[in-house]
Amino acid sequence: MNTETTDEIIAATGRALCECGYADLTMQRIAKESSLTTAAIHYHFDTKSELLNAFLDDLIERFQARLACEAEDPRERLTTFVDAVFTPSASDDDFPVALMELKAQAPYHDGFRERFCDLDDVMRRVVATAVRDGIDAGHFEEADPEAVARLVTTAINGAHVRRVALGEDGAETRATVERYLELQLGWTPNSEVTA
Amino acid sequence: MNTETTDEIIAATGRALCECGYADLTMQRIAKESSLTTAAIHYHFDTKSELLNAFLDDLIERFQARLACEAEDPRERLTTFVDAVFTPSASDDDFPVALMELKAQAPYHDGFRERFCDLDDVMRRVVATAVRDGIDAGHFEEADPEAVARLVTTAINGAHVRRVALGEDGAETRATVERYLELQLGWTPNSEVTA
Repeated sequence: MNTETTDEIIAATGRALCECGYADLTMQRIAKESSLTTAAIHYHFDTKSELLNAFLDDLIERFQARLACEAEDPRERLTTFVDAVFTPSASDDDFPVALMELKAQAPYHDGFRERFCDLDDVMRRVVATAVRDGIDAGHFEEADPEAVARLVTTAINGAHVRRVALGEDGAETRATVERYLELQLGWTPNSEVTA
Repeated sequence: MNTETTDEIIAATGRALCECGYADLTMQRIAKESSLTTAAIHYHFDTKSELLNAFLDDLIERFQARLACEAEDPRERLTTFVDAVFTPSASDDDFPVALMELKAQAPYHDGFRERFCDLDDVMRRVVATAVRDGIDAGHFEEADPEAVARLVTTAINGAHVRRVALGEDGAETRATVERYLELQLGWTPNSEVTA
């Protein structure tokens, strides 16, 4: 359960991670980004890994909130998903780099890996459910919803690494994913939804 | 131009990178993996960055050699590409992790970024050319070769990060890419090629 203090520590962790990278991230560095002492941070989180696990939990929770779409219409849900994934958030531009560093650390940290797997499940479930519902409702052409969700999610993973390694913005991958959905489903996100 | 000595240094760099990661990589660590002294390595490469640039050049060269396919038939070229990309090489299992660390460093190292962009160009060109030739020869259905190449390459980038972050092997993404090519081109790699 997050409190105001743990929220502040998590936000400071994100800023420190963006500024100095994973290798140079220390409790001292995080304390400097917050109004708290190193001792106070240690009181809440024993280790850097524990703190980064909480940081990832918070990230996933916020991402899920952005994906949340109460719409009945599966076309609107797919549109919300694509917008959430490809619209850069207001957060620091260094954020995708910091997140990639944590992904690169996943082989050495079961806690990180578990959370990235959870995030992947969330993304794939949202897409697969929208695709399945859209096929059932006759909006989309026949397709394997799990397979569509897998390709879309893999392309989003690719967009992340392309942004970090190549400096490419997400617009290219967004267009690529939309072309694929048009081909596969006969419908693209952000098309007008008519009943 | 690589010599036997620089080849040895580059190979030692790859092993050291896999073993200790980017953050802990030092000239001393690389020397330990080779028969050379730290001074001898410095004679050939001034800095760690310079050495890693040479390591990436070598990597791209070897990757291009694996992609090289003299076949006239674009279907065979596409098959060779998919096999080269998705068949794990004999190299260390930590290699994808080490490569992801270098990708995460690309925003801070223009030399790394340049090389990853070159690698991306190579991959996209191979796919786009095979698709274009296959359409011209009547083997594949009409499609935009550049767009197909972009989706395939982005999915391969996604497979890399999925392997590192989620521990997923490439088979899932391979099947995903092959399903996409079947849908888009009416043909999948590794299908029998009949004239």
